[in-house]
Amino acid sequence: MINVVKIGGNVIDAKEALSAFLKDFAAIEGDKILVHGGGKEATRLSKALGIETRMIEGRRVTDSETIDVVTMVYAGLINKRIVSMLQDLGCDAVGLTGADGNAIPAKRRNPEPIDYGFVGDISSEKVNVSLVRSLLEGGMTPVFCAICHDGEGQLLNCNADSVANAVAEACTAIGPVTLTYCFEKPGVMADVNDDASVIPFIDSESFESLKEQGVIADGMVPKITNALKAANHGVTVRICRASDLLRDGGTVIKAN
Amino acid sequence: MINVVKIGGNVIDAKEALSAFLKDFAAIEGDKILVHGGGKEATRLSKALGIETRMIEGRRVTDSETIDVVTMVYAGLINKRIVSMLQDLGCDAVGLTGADGNAIPAKRRNPEPIDYGFVGDISSEKVNVSLVRSLLEGGMTPVFCAICHDGEGQLLNCNADSVANAVAEACTAIGPVTLTYCFEKPGVMADVNDDASVIPFIDSESFESLKEQGVIADGMVPKITNALKAANHGVTVRICRASDLLRDGGTVIKAN
Repeated sequence: MINVVKIGGNVIDAKEALSAFLKDFAAIEGDKILVHGGGKEATRLSKALGIETRMIEGRRVTDSETIDVVTMVYAGLINKRIVSMLQDLGCDAVGLTGADGNAIPAKRRNPEPIDYGFVGDISSEKVNVSLVRSLLEGGMTPVFCAICHDGEGQLLNCNADSVANAVAEACTAIGPVTLTYCFEKPGVMADVNDDASVIPFIDSESFESLKEQGVIADGMVPKITNALKAANHGVTVRICRASDLLRDGGTVIKAN
Repeated sequence: MINVVKIGGNVIDAKEALSAFLKDFAAIEGDKILVHGGGKEATRLSKALGIETRMIEGRRVTDSETIDVVTMVYAGLINKRIVSMLQDLGCDAVGLTGADGNAIPAKRRNPEPIDYGFVGDISSEKVNVSLVRSLLEGGMTPVFCAICHDGEGQLLNCNADSVANAVAEACTAIGPVTLTYCFEKPGVMADVNDDASVIPFIDSESFESLKEQGVIADGMVPKITNALKAANHGVTVRICRASDLLRDGGTVIKAN
């Protein structure tokens, strides 16, 4: 079993939460892969450097100054902080961007209708599975940030959920895969103000009706669309609170 | 033959020089490893963030804010820029810090008599040769920056010459190794103002007399001390201009 785990910015921004999460992650037996998002550090650094942060529909517009900032923060600061913390926990982590070993080639997003700049899209067929396999076989734990490249010398800012997804789907060529999206909520909730309202299972059909009812909206829509894609690819997918990584619970995304 | 090449800040800071250098580096046949220094980017970023840069005897005093800055710049910006450029040149580069795969564990430098902060020292015996070997066997090219770790969750700023040295010495366990220190001069020169005065060979004996004469001074002293150590470890060592990487010339450091 290969366990792919994605953590988002909220955990990364909170030092103690990150430390507790990595302890749990390191305790997962067998093959595991971590994919991490960015957190607020990139926005903070941009601000300190006088670079305007522009977001469109929750995505960062990445001009040439901003790709440098996110490369510094995601591939440098956060990735290496996580790697060194995991090493301390006895987990033989190796930090990677999609450029390293050509692990995840990406394609710059079409500037029409919205020009996001150096933002890339990826697909699971392009993931360098043999690199991932050889690292896992060597007892190592790949730790991916969401910086990828176009293969022609340009780094591209990608979406960490999509990276987690693509890596998980690609790893089904090696063996069974679970994908756990960790975030700040206990799962997908019928009522965002009620932690007890976690929806235990979602499939394509219930997703459609939950969208219609407005229960699932905004950022959760692409997350669950991604998750359903992975589930239909044979990946066991769960969305849960970071602190529940080693426990049951959360929302399981089911294939059709 | 394993070719270990070190480039310093001057090449990294000049976009065209870096591009030309990487083209030459990518053209080296067979196993190769790149170790890169930092350049002025870290000082620039520190300044922009209002963090004071303190240097003592040419070494950066690395407080907790500064280790974040150098991790961002060396492990993030520069390392990934080089990796993506090499990928474009058909060289399957993998960027690494000493924390990744526990490649190069370091020891924080004793704060007495001078407290350099999060600065680390390394030794060739600690280099994870099996990781380097498996990357090379996989057709990959490790690209090291000089950020290492103490194995207990702390990243440490190390000297890139020392990293190149340690990696080259360690690789003698795999096979014959050459180590090329690339910098902005055509080699070690008898007269710094005369490019034609390159000293073709230096060994321990001539090093002592060149130091006495004041021909070799300042930053060249530790560089050549390191180089002699590697030569005495069985490594073929040369100091040359970055643009002479694929040509003969420069100063060859000879074992006793």
